[in-house]
Amino acid sequence: MTQIRYGMVGGGPGAFIGGVHRAAAAVDGGYELVSGSFSSDPAKSRQTGKQLGLDGDRVYSDFREMALVEATREDGIEAVVIVTPNHLHYEVAKVFLEAGIHVICDKPLTTSVEDADELVRLTTERGLVFVVTYNYTGYPMIKEARERVSAGALGAIRKVVVEYSQGWLSTLLEAEGHKQAEWRGDPERAGPSSALGDIGTHAFNLMHYVTGLEVRRLFADLGTVLEGRALEDDAVVLLDLEDGVRGVMMVSQIATGERNHILLRVYGADAALHWSQEDPDRLRMVDSGGTETVLFRGGDVGPHATRATRLPGGHPEGFIEAFANIYREAAAAIRGVDAVTGSSGVTPDFPTVQDGALGVDFIFRAIESDRDQAWVKMAGERSAKSSERT
Amino acid sequence: MTQIRYGMVGGGPGAFIGGVHRAAAAVDGGYELVSGSFSSDPAKSRQTGKQLGLDGDRVYSDFREMALVEATREDGIEAVVIVTPNHLHYEVAKVFLEAGIHVICDKPLTTSVEDADELVRLTTERGLVFVVTYNYTGYPMIKEARERVSAGALGAIRKVVVEYSQGWLSTLLEAEGHKQAEWRGDPERAGPSSALGDIGTHAFNLMHYVTGLEVRRLFADLGTVLEGRALEDDAVVLLDLEDGVRGVMMVSQIATGERNHILLRVYGADAALHWSQEDPDRLRMVDSGGTETVLFRGGDVGPHATRATRLPGGHPEGFIEAFANIYREAAAAIRGVDAVTGSSGVTPDFPTVQDGALGVDFIFRAIESDRDQAWVKMAGERSAKSSERT
Amino acid sequence: MTQIRYGMVGGGPGAFIGGVHRAAAAVDGGYELVSGSFSSDPAKSRQTGKQLGLDGDRVYSDFREMALVEATREDGIEAVVIVTPNHLHYEVAKVFLEAGIHVICDKPLTTSVEDADELVRLTTERGLVFVVTYNYTGYPMIKEARERVSAGALGAIRKVVVEYSQGWLSTLLEAEGHKQAEWRGDPERAGPSSALGDIGTHAFNLMHYVTGLEVRRLFADLGTVLEGRALEDDAVVLLDLEDGVRGVMMVSQIATGERNHILLRVYGADAALHWSQEDPDRLRMVDSGGTETVLFRGGDVGPHATRATRLPGGHPEGFIEAFANIYREAAAAIRGVDAVTGSSGVTPDFPTVQDGALGVDFIFRAIESDRDQAWVKMAGERSAKSSERT
Amino acid sequence: MTQIRYGMVGGGPGAFIGGVHRAAAAVDGGYELVSGSFSSDPAKSRQTGKQLGLDGDRVYSDFREMALVEATREDGIEAVVIVTPNHLHYEVAKVFLEAGIHVICDKPLTTSVEDADELVRLTTERGLVFVVTYNYTGYPMIKEARERVSAGALGAIRKVVVEYSQGWLSTLLEAEGHKQAEWRGDPERAGPSSALGDIGTHAFNLMHYVTGLEVRRLFADLGTVLEGRALEDDAVVLLDLEDGVRGVMMVSQIATGERNHILLRVYGADAALHWSQEDPDRLRMVDSGGTETVLFRGGDVGPHATRATRLPGGHPEGFIEAFANIYREAAAAIRGVDAVTGSSGVTPDFPTVQDGALGVDFIFRAIESDRDQAWVKMAGERSAKSSERT
Repeated sequence: MTQIRYGMVGGGPGAFIGGVHRAAAAVDGGYELVSGSFSSDPAKSRQTGKQLGLDGDRVYSDFREMALVEATREDGIEAVVIVTPNHLHYEVAKVFLEAGIHVICDKPLTTSVEDADELVRLTTERGLVFVVTYNYTGYPMIKEARERVSAGALGAIRKVVVEYSQGWLSTLLEAEGHKQAEWRGDPERAGPSSALGDIGTHAFNLMHYVTGLEVRRLFADLGTVLEGRALEDDAVVLLDLEDGVRGVMMVSQIATGERNHILLRVYGADAALHWSQEDPDRLRMVDSGGTETVLFRGGDVGPHATRATRLPGGHPEGFIEAFANIYREAAAAIRGVDAVTGSSGVTPDFPTVQDGALGVDFIFRAIESDRDQAWVKMAGERSAKSSERT
Repeated sequence: MTQIRYGMVGGGPGAFIGGVHRAAAAVDGGYELVSGSFSSDPAKSRQTGKQLGLDGDRVYSDFREMALVEATREDGIEAVVIVTPNHLHYEVAKVFLEAGIHVICDKPLTTSVEDADELVRLTTERGLVFVVTYNYTGYPMIKEARERVSAGALGAIRKVVVEYSQGWLSTLLEAEGHKQAEWRGDPERAGPSSALGDIGTHAFNLMHYVTGLEVRRLFADLGTVLEGRALEDDAVVLLDLEDGVRGVMMVSQIATGERNHILLRVYGADAALHWSQEDPDRLRMVDSGGTETVLFRGGDVGPHATRATRLPGGHPEGFIEAFANIYREAAAAIRGVDAVTGSSGVTPDFPTVQDGALGVDFIFRAIESDRDQAWVKMAGERSAKSSERT
Repeated sequence: MTQIRYGMVGGGPGAFIGGVHRAAAAVDGGYELVSGSFSSDPAKSRQTGKQLGLDGDRVYSDFREMALVEATREDGIEAVVIVTPNHLHYEVAKVFLEAGIHVICDKPLTTSVEDADELVRLTTERGLVFVVTYNYTGYPMIKEARERVSAGALGAIRKVVVEYSQGWLSTLLEAEGHKQAEWRGDPERAGPSSALGDIGTHAFNLMHYVTGLEVRRLFADLGTVLEGRALEDDAVVLLDLEDGVRGVMMVSQIATGERNHILLRVYGADAALHWSQEDPDRLRMVDSGGTETVLFRGGDVGPHATRATRLPGGHPEGFIEAFANIYREAAAAIRGVDAVTGSSGVTPDFPTVQDGALGVDFIFRAIESDRDQAWVKMAGERSAKSSERT
Repeated sequence: MTQIRYGMVGGGPGAFIGGVHRAAAAVDGGYELVSGSFSSDPAKSRQTGKQLGLDGDRVYSDFREMALVEATREDGIEAVVIVTPNHLHYEVAKVFLEAGIHVICDKPLTTSVEDADELVRLTTERGLVFVVTYNYTGYPMIKEARERVSAGALGAIRKVVVEYSQGWLSTLLEAEGHKQAEWRGDPERAGPSSALGDIGTHAFNLMHYVTGLEVRRLFADLGTVLEGRALEDDAVVLLDLEDGVRGVMMVSQIATGERNHILLRVYGADAALHWSQEDPDRLRMVDSGGTETVLFRGGDVGPHATRATRLPGGHPEGFIEAFANIYREAAAAIRGVDAVTGSSGVTPDFPTVQDGALGVDFIFRAIESDRDQAWVKMAGERSAKSSERT
């Protein structure tokens, strides 16, 4: 499989996630970065382009120009990676989709439900690949969890608890010139939500990915714990899921001392599963007698987990490898050929633009519920089937 | 210190907690069981009395007779331990208080707020010791947690998450003749709540004991997950605590595979603490940089934890020892002398009748909130200062 | 079952283990302490006797007098608990055996192989019960481990690693007037070994109890890490076990920061088991594919573990409860009736005087090997079958 | 910094470690693979070259031809990565060193002490960079451990325990056509040792890297547990380290169920450290009071750990990232410029050819000791200072 030529929008000096995307794309050797619009400041964009060894004429400060030029070059980019602050996702994605270029875009997809719907429409219309990097679904043991749930290993699901706790905003970092905190705490750039938009969407997607359950109604209680902060930094969302399954989501950016504590628990009639992102290579299954079976990446797991695994058990894989799995699946979708087996006809497993739109809807419903302190319905029809597999 | 002569009401054949109380009372050698009304069935009461080596004339089937007779004997009981189903707590406690006998009573204190208030009144009036066995506060590292919080080790508290998850009612045990499940699921004997009454009160008390925070308002979502069940078996309660502290309580009896998973987390401005009942000898403190300090029972901990410790670190203490600490403190209160140091003038540390009443109020407010799906105020004045220490 | 009247030799002011024995005996209500010779200093012995509420005429300063008098009283003791420093075990045990009184004695059994052999002989001759409190075998999950091994769950055993690491002697405590360290570090009172005698015998017995394997030969490397110390405080012993099984024992008193870290690992052809004393309610079984099954006390375990369990899973049991199991089994042996089920005809499971003698032999062989830096044979015939069960 | 052009010898179809090297080299974008001799079978070499997108004329089947041709091309490789079975390391490394090409070579360095010495000599003579991929030293928290030890955080070191346990050779895989097991179990290709050569050298290097201690003498007990196996699959090595520090190494390939269990413990007079490869982002420090401080990658750690860190705490980094750190340091050594900071004048931190030679000496001394069952001296002078840092 020849390498996919890609460009990047965002990811200039001081950015964090741009580098992660580039490393993830590099791990399996399936992508080649050839172009970029790393900053709207021409000097900064050129500086990053140079550091990355790009040809000067393929580094832009205007993403619209980039889309236009690259779409017409014979060796132009096939895909664009969007790692800007949230408020730009829509504009950038739209421009590249219209130029016929595949999109790999960070979450949350957009800062309004209407924009999200428009991207869904455009993607479908153009028949392009649109990947939203809900990267936690790239972990092999999350794929195993999904398999086990769907195979009925837990019996009927009864309760889901998903938590994403961070402590990095325990102080008012945004007032201290911290670039990452600044834009995430600014409604102009982050959209109407901080905790929910930045990490709640991950928690929501992870829950949905593993259980397949839709949210019927939700009740949200958002809090802005630190004075002087513009957006919420803590949230609890009660979920009324399909079939009466009870769900709880806890999200926090002010949980002092927590790093990136994502904990997913699914309780079924027969067994439960537990997975923690900070210990991603294990999946704990507990039966009704309390006996715990701990499955390990690289061990006796199913084909989906195995396909997402690069190393034998006991050689820890981490965040970059999970991210790389999204890229690997995206490559399979773009090329129409499975990157691992080389066979065609597989249905790649990645978070789609529909998944992204569903996450945006979740944010807005939660804000509405918190405002009214009432249960609010979610728009079920939006959660069209996504990330299918054979 | 001479042994305290005590009697027991409840705890006959098939009971579980009666044996725990007896073992806890025996550990330090401070109590002697001399009387009992173990069952309203005379034959069963006699059988248990005989197994426990009691004199036949001090075994009763009528707890009223027991109170009357024991109160007049020169060698009569000084304290009574009440381990009946919930609906009898009030009647039994009242009778013994009126007979001038100290009471050690299981939780929840009563099945109505009015009854709880009456016991508070009676206890105060008679000047007797009334202990509610919220036994999880007997763990040494919980005492350490309380000390650290009150000494400001966490900075201002911002968020509290307390969870008590069990899985033993994942099947409809009450329909299969399981004695413990039967009365806990029967509104006649358990009162208006199952999950909240049986374990939610523990979670509530533990949170309150460690943080000292009062609940201003709460929002509860109760669920009865198993069809055919009379009372709720799952609950989430959002807590609006003093000073705007955000709280979440999760309680479940249908969390398949969970044994007795109590997890308390307190997040402050400077640090957080984590404690898990299934690993009770550790207390994790995490600072804002994410560095974790794990304190161990028997190690470098303060006087309250040390006082509650029998063995050097690394020799695990468990549930019975935590329970025994409640008994030890009760003995100090009854005798007016510290059981460990032998000095008088200490203020023993145990859950009082006021703590018990507060727990009952919590149950009723939660039920009210769930019914109305609205935030409900808690009666702050009821949470009078309890379990004081010097 | 009526309570067993017992006396204690040792366990006076400043002792640690005496209190543990008394609490362990009290937990199930099966024993009554009625006599004692707590110290050779009459005042100290009286002081402890008074604290424990004993009749003054049953408190002695001379254990010989105690044996003589108690053996002739109608209500005299049926068993004696010996918790003196090691060098007195032999003398005390001999006197009580000769008086026809059952013995419960701390480890190591004696300070010479000859003395140990003599106690074995005497016990057999008199037909008395002699229990050596290798208390770690009292843990329910150790019993489960033994069952699983003997049922072939691991396949043929290939390798055993047992470790007992402590850090409390990382400083020269014995020079600072620390009573426990003083006698353990004094060859006159501890015998020829400190680390091996005090904790190595536990590790040895635990390995032997779980696997049933005899040691054919051993190679020991002992070290005295702290200058000014009279006996070894660190040891590695290579074990050549039956059937060519490879064994490693690591024992240390200078492993800074370790509390009571006992770790047992048994590797078989098909699976392995792991157990840690500081987390005693779990037993980890790992299959050859690396999948781990964690069994919990109170869960799906066999009859021997269940018999040794007092509380449902999730209510931690600890050191005292494990100790109490030894007492419970001793009671069954003394009474000839199972304490739990009330049936006769069971074979109680406790460490016998033969187990104690085997431990003494282990110490002397290890010292010999270290001296010669050569592999040394163990006297297999001494390891007669012990702690039988049906 | 322009990318380093490199070639690879070994790593053809069915190989495992070749792919890891390529991913590790790709993560930071500092290397470009341009040439290879992936197999001595021309078809297989071509197949791999094509899969990796190499120009056909830069794919060889004869590594000697590759060295010759590449050395003379203007755009020839600057470095070679050697991932062949052990017996070829010497020949290949020698040829490329003589061609003036830097070498990155897998461990063990060679299959004889003489060959290792010759590579040390050649490297020094030519002034080239020679990296041995003792990759576990690439983990950030291992660098933190080294810093803390050398800063005296543990006080004087007293005891070191290092363990590397695997279970993958619990069955006779080499007889079932398992490629990895085959050559590792074949003295012709693996050299005179299996467990020690393959993983013991890692354990040895890790211990040495963190503590800086030399081995004065050792005593080894090797075992070949599975019948029909040509080389040892289990080993215990007692280490007599500098300053009388006691050391124990346990290495196994037949520890059923273990994946890649590397555990390093260093006990000092004041504190101890514990690190486990399967949980690499944590470093546990335990003080003499038993209080444990858990440090996390990305948290409050020193400059060396920070330099080796790509992601914020809580985003797990794993094996590939640790491997990539070796490559990053190698790049700094080859370019003379720090890859992270861009400054020159730093001393890169990587395992040198001297470290490799020391590991080979360790293997041969251990075999000698096992044969004679006697303590054997190690050649101290060979352990010249390596992996220096400023």
